[in-house]
Amino acid sequence: MKLWEISTSECGGDAEGIMRRGNIFQIANGYMGYRGTLDEFGSEQLVGITLAGIFDRVGDAWREPVNAPNGGYTSVTIDGVELSALSETDVEHTQSLNFANAAFQRETRFLSGDKAVTLKSSRFLSADTPNLGVIRFSIRCDAATEVMIRTGIDGDIWDLNGPHLPKLAYEKRGDVLVTYGSTHESSKGVAVAEALECGFGEDAHEICEQKNLRVIHFSAKAGKTYSFDKYFAVVTDNDAFETPVDQAAIDIVERAKVRGYMACLAKHDDVWAGKWAESDVVIEGDDEAQLALRYSILQLLMVAPVKSSSNSIPARALSGQVYKGAIFWDTELFMYPFFLHTNPEVAVELLRYRIRTLDGARRKAMTEGPGYRGAFYAWESQETGDDACSYFNVGDPITGRDLRTHFRDKQVHISGDVAIAMWKYFLHTGDDSLLLEGGAEVILECARFYFSYAYFKKDKARYEILDVIGPDEYHERVNNNAFTSQVARETFVVALAAVEHLRLKHPSQLDVLLERLEIARELIDFAEAAELLYVPEPDAETGVIEQFEGYFKLKMTTPAELKERLVHPNEYLGAGQGLAVPTQVIKQADVVMMLNLFKNRYSAAIKRANWEYYEPRTEHGSSLSACAYAMVALEFGNLDFAYRYFLKTAKIDLEAKSKLYAGTIFIGGSHPAANGGAWMTAVFGFGGVNAEDGRLSIHPRLYEKWNRLQFPLNYQGDRFVITITHEVVTITAPSTNSRTHLVNVAGDVVQCEADATLSVPLVSLCK
Amino acid sequence: MKLWEISTSECGGDAEGIMRRGNIFQIANGYMGYRGTLDEFGSEQLVGITLAGIFDRVGDAWREPVNAPNGGYTSVTIDGVELSALSETDVEHTQSLNFANAAFQRETRFLSGDKAVTLKSSRFLSADTPNLGVIRFSIRCDAATEVMIRTGIDGDIWDLNGPHLPKLAYEKRGDVLVTYGSTHESSKGVAVAEALECGFGEDAHEICEQKNLRVIHFSAKAGKTYSFDKYFAVVTDNDAFETPVDQAAIDIVERAKVRGYMACLAKHDDVWAGKWAESDVVIEGDDEAQLALRYSILQLLMVAPVKSSSNSIPARALSGQVYKGAIFWDTELFMYPFFLHTNPEVAVELLRYRIRTLDGARRKAMTEGPGYRGAFYAWESQETGDDACSYFNVGDPITGRDLRTHFRDKQVHISGDVAIAMWKYFLHTGDDSLLLEGGAEVILECARFYFSYAYFKKDKARYEILDVIGPDEYHERVNNNAFTSQVARETFVVALAAVEHLRLKHPSQLDVLLERLEIARELIDFAEAAELLYVPEPDAETGVIEQFEGYFKLKMTTPAELKERLVHPNEYLGAGQGLAVPTQVIKQADVVMMLNLFKNRYSAAIKRANWEYYEPRTEHGSSLSACAYAMVALEFGNLDFAYRYFLKTAKIDLEAKSKLYAGTIFIGGSHPAANGGAWMTAVFGFGGVNAEDGRLSIHPRLYEKWNRLQFPLNYQGDRFVITITHEVVTITAPSTNSRTHLVNVAGDVVQCEADATLSVPLVSLCK
Repeated sequence: MKLWEISTSECGGDAEGIMRRGNIFQIANGYMGYRGTLDEFGSEQLVGITLAGIFDRVGDAWREPVNAPNGGYTSVTIDGVELSALSETDVEHTQSLNFANAAFQRETRFLSGDKAVTLKSSRFLSADTPNLGVIRFSIRCDAATEVMIRTGIDGDIWDLNGPHLPKLAYEKRGDVLVTYGSTHESSKGVAVAEALECGFGEDAHEICEQKNLRVIHFSAKAGKTYSFDKYFAVVTDNDAFETPVDQAAIDIVERAKVRGYMACLAKHDDVWAGKWAESDVVIEGDDEAQLALRYSILQLLMVAPVKSSSNSIPARALSGQVYKGAIFWDTELFMYPFFLHTNPEVAVELLRYRIRTLDGARRKAMTEGPGYRGAFYAWESQETGDDACSYFNVGDPITGRDLRTHFRDKQVHISGDVAIAMWKYFLHTGDDSLLLEGGAEVILECARFYFSYAYFKKDKARYEILDVIGPDEYHERVNNNAFTSQVARETFVVALAAVEHLRLKHPSQLDVLLERLEIARELIDFAEAAELLYVPEPDAETGVIEQFEGYFKLKMTTPAELKERLVHPNEYLGAGQGLAVPTQVIKQADVVMMLNLFKNRYSAAIKRANWEYYEPRTEHGSSLSACAYAMVALEFGNLDFAYRYFLKTAKIDLEAKSKLYAGTIFIGGSHPAANGGAWMTAVFGFGGVNAEDGRLSIHPRLYEKWNRLQFPLNYQGDRFVITITHEVVTITAPSTNSRTHLVNVAGDVVQCEADATLSVPLVSLCK
Repeated sequence: MKLWEISTSECGGDAEGIMRRGNIFQIANGYMGYRGTLDEFGSEQLVGITLAGIFDRVGDAWREPVNAPNGGYTSVTIDGVELSALSETDVEHTQSLNFANAAFQRETRFLSGDKAVTLKSSRFLSADTPNLGVIRFSIRCDAATEVMIRTGIDGDIWDLNGPHLPKLAYEKRGDVLVTYGSTHESSKGVAVAEALECGFGEDAHEICEQKNLRVIHFSAKAGKTYSFDKYFAVVTDNDAFETPVDQAAIDIVERAKVRGYMACLAKHDDVWAGKWAESDVVIEGDDEAQLALRYSILQLLMVAPVKSSSNSIPARALSGQVYKGAIFWDTELFMYPFFLHTNPEVAVELLRYRIRTLDGARRKAMTEGPGYRGAFYAWESQETGDDACSYFNVGDPITGRDLRTHFRDKQVHISGDVAIAMWKYFLHTGDDSLLLEGGAEVILECARFYFSYAYFKKDKARYEILDVIGPDEYHERVNNNAFTSQVARETFVVALAAVEHLRLKHPSQLDVLLERLEIARELIDFAEAAELLYVPEPDAETGVIEQFEGYFKLKMTTPAELKERLVHPNEYLGAGQGLAVPTQVIKQADVVMMLNLFKNRYSAAIKRANWEYYEPRTEHGSSLSACAYAMVALEFGNLDFAYRYFLKTAKIDLEAKSKLYAGTIFIGGSHPAANGGAWMTAVFGFGGVNAEDGRLSIHPRLYEKWNRLQFPLNYQGDRFVITITHEVVTITAPSTNSRTHLVNVAGDVVQCEADATLSVPLVSLCK
């Protein structure tokens, strides 16, 4: 079994297959994603080059990221017949994705009449030049044949709610094709340039049906391979080049062409080698798990934001425009830990995105509620931080009407998720510079928001967080949701800790900040709320924590039973009158999510009790659910279950079998949160790494059939490679580490010096 | 035009006609209601004898009042053909209702073959003997004919969710028929006895298809009238006779038969003459309004609870089992004022019902919410005060599913409605005995409930009432609903006032009460809440009060526009996803209802501003709505509108054109709240009577075409007859009045002595 590559021989024109392969074989470089479609595909085959951080809205439709014109377009015609892998007759096809450098390859052999033609291409999105894509294309005919190649930029773009670039210009300047236009909403320029290195044939320029093309005719000799290289660049006004976007794109492809294909690839591969060195997880003895986890890590590495972009990662990453290309809590809770412990520079970018969009969160607080103050982060956040989420975010397939949902106005845990992540960066890296850069301001404004949201219950002498949606979105507008209340309380704690830290280390900067925010006299409120905010406790008898007030009174049933009562297969189970609403069926981990997020606060017995209570009630209708259950299962020793849900999570995008609709809304695409969840389950779960309480600890719970689990880990600015077998934990610290660390390995505290390898035998604690 | 009677010549078997006539021509005596059906009708024609205060539940169906077997059944067969007014051929029919004594008459002439037969009957439910019904039946044939009469008790009962008396016994004891059984749920005995006074024919006993019958054969002579009298009695275990229900019923009919028809009628008529003397409203110059208002008053007089029953009046009175026979806030807000100012003894009964069911309200508080205390009165209250309302109280005709509604758990204004009514009794009658009987306890427990429900908003330094449904049920779970918050705040005010009164007048009884309720130290909470509970204020610019937090942000549209978008005609507009939910369309008066209930707190300008804002947004989908708008319109001088909505309200049951379904739920029947609303609009509205601030005032706003408006009024235990013309207000006080009253008449304060008539000319104030 290949452990660094996936491939398929499937092709053909069935819509679902095209959708699936487009997802599975996508490549990305943080700047843009390129779906795993073939060179000759067009908008009907869902070719998508989705750009990070640039959004547009057409009319009343959903605001979504802009897709760029396809600079990778090439089609081949022999004897007047255009070759397409979609024609299912007489085609032999393979396409593959190389994990090592995120390169996409295809090889297709066509029998057209009595002639056989083989097309190959390989493409990558440059890891060192974010705007650049590079393709090597070749053609070989078994017999002498007249060939026409049409290659260039296809402006006919797949959009969910477009077109976003309504008036494209198609030009050829010198040897470079350039197609450019500007967005509908705010006239942001977007340009795609293409340069070709081609040593054969005659070249004519053609503009046809939104395609800006070169037409190359030549007579192919039998058995000879004809090869050319394509360089395309996407540039938008967001990039702030000194020249206009069209010229900037032209400059990039001209420079790349001068450098040449092999040099571009070499630089790209170098960057990728570094990425893998920082993050690869080795699972020995279980190829299926190894491949799936590595694929998951690949996905995260591909979509990590470009350095200094202050961009974040949307819930469907760069696989398309689903969920409006918006950033959700998924990023902080599921993707961020991976970067925090492998490449903190990327983690910083994700947090900078929240700092950059703080004003949007302030605007949301001001406009959303009566008297809300501080930062109410958007449920679906785009480039400004204003909320892209509609109040009617799910369609009802029975009536065709849009359902009122409260994701936008009531899912308030997002602010706390951001604040906690912000603080965690300091805790886990020891670097407080981000706090000074705006991180502390974010935290304080989130605390301010919760104080303005909270109510005091006088006869119970406590604050309560009312009227929210927790992670389980099927139950809207609930009171005292354990997850949300814990996150809110933690936000107050974190705010006070941040102030305390700055008071000690950066007192004058703190004073300036408190003054500017006019927040000094609110700190006493935060302190009271940190103490008196009510978070539901485990039941004294059963240990079960009530998900929200009144949950235990709801009807007990199972997801399977509910689904039998569906009138329409895509019927939404929540939104006020959905089938799950009056029942205990939940969409995804909620209490269990809290137990995972605050795992050091609850005993294994409480985790088990809640896990056993909630698991049968959970639909796992979100990709965030299974890995939370897997991690908590590991905390009390249910390794078999954990393994099953780990695999389910790690394979989610590899298999691409997830549901494609919520109500009437298309939700297909990739699942970077699950990718991050798979990594967390491997490292924090099976690996037993816990860095929550100011010291690294490793309590491995290695799955039986795994011989070895090995991964690099970044903690407090130093690096480690941790190797776990059933007998021993080995920690290797490079010479670059700054100091000796105390690490708790399965109960023993050991000293881990720089430039040393340490082995701690496992006796009976680990099975 | 007759002003004390309605009649129709309609008959025939169309289902809607039978339903309508059954409603319009019903009679009642507080103990039971008898729908306006004909002697020969059965359960398919919706014959219903609905009993007050006895309820039953079958399986999982709705709990509802018990219908008694029909002791009024008679059918006539001539020459083997059974006569029925349902056969639409050759029938001349009249049926009428006499307002003066609530008697129902029918006269039907049948042509059967070549023979003509005339049946007449007249029935009344005794106003002095609550269990008793009396019928005089006659038959006259134009030609000599063989006649068979089958008369007795029909046990085949119309039920919405029955059968409630599953195993009936059918007996004849001596000359009396008796049919009896017991309820499904709690085996409460229900018996119906029938005695006959018949001077002709042969009598045989027959039990056939749940009918317990006498069969009378005789040869009728041409032109001779044969007449008999029927006495039937209904007795249940609720009545607490010393003998079993069957024997008690037998005793009643035997005594009635000895007394005889004319004597029974004379006593009945006496009682009715007294009722009308206390309550009739004369409108001279407008027969349509006169008839409709008198019919409305008749309805209220008929369903007033039996003395010492501690029963109240259900939302559909005794017209059937709709709305589970439950008592809603309708009673306190719409029916109670009529009785309070015409017959306070009945008003007391309505309040005693709330005292009797206080424990049910306590149970509801304990079970419904987290930490609720005190009295949370039931949204739909039956005999115990436990809530009959389901959490799924509306059916969705599109999916056939029951919709989650929050009437039961969130429509919390009911407790305040009760507490305010309780206090108003003391204010308007000067009688504090009810406070000592349990009234003060009710008020204190309602205040306790609101304190346990309220939250304190620290950064706004105020209490808020969150998560409620106001009168407008289309918008569920709203915060700071002006109506509800005002009612809650008033409850605290009233509680403190009641304590203050008892402290002055009955200090030792107060101490005992406070001790028993362990509530003394909560009074300081009540005082704080009375001061700091937030009630939305009129907007400084527009004067409009926001119905609830966020209402102004909802989409502006009209009820008519919404209705164009219905997929199903019976689709419910509320319940989370109904068409009205995201819009400003409201079901019924809400802010305007508040302005009416607390009318002395708002200026005419504020009333006008809100009226003009909300009226176009109001569906008037409840019978409580139109009269509230009419009364507020009068406050700022829109008499034409007020008159239109007054007539609409007064005619609601006379025309019986109201909607019959809410979602999938049948809601047909009478509207006693609208009947009370019509009276209030006449007396408080056009009459301008205002007794809210400790002194009677009369600011008439007589409608142009009315020459004279005259009504009796009870205030502070004394009586007045008030006559209003366009020129003068005349107040007559009988010699029995206890003292001289100061009355404000159109701005002049006059002294109104006992045994005197006072005339105050109206100059320019009244047009």
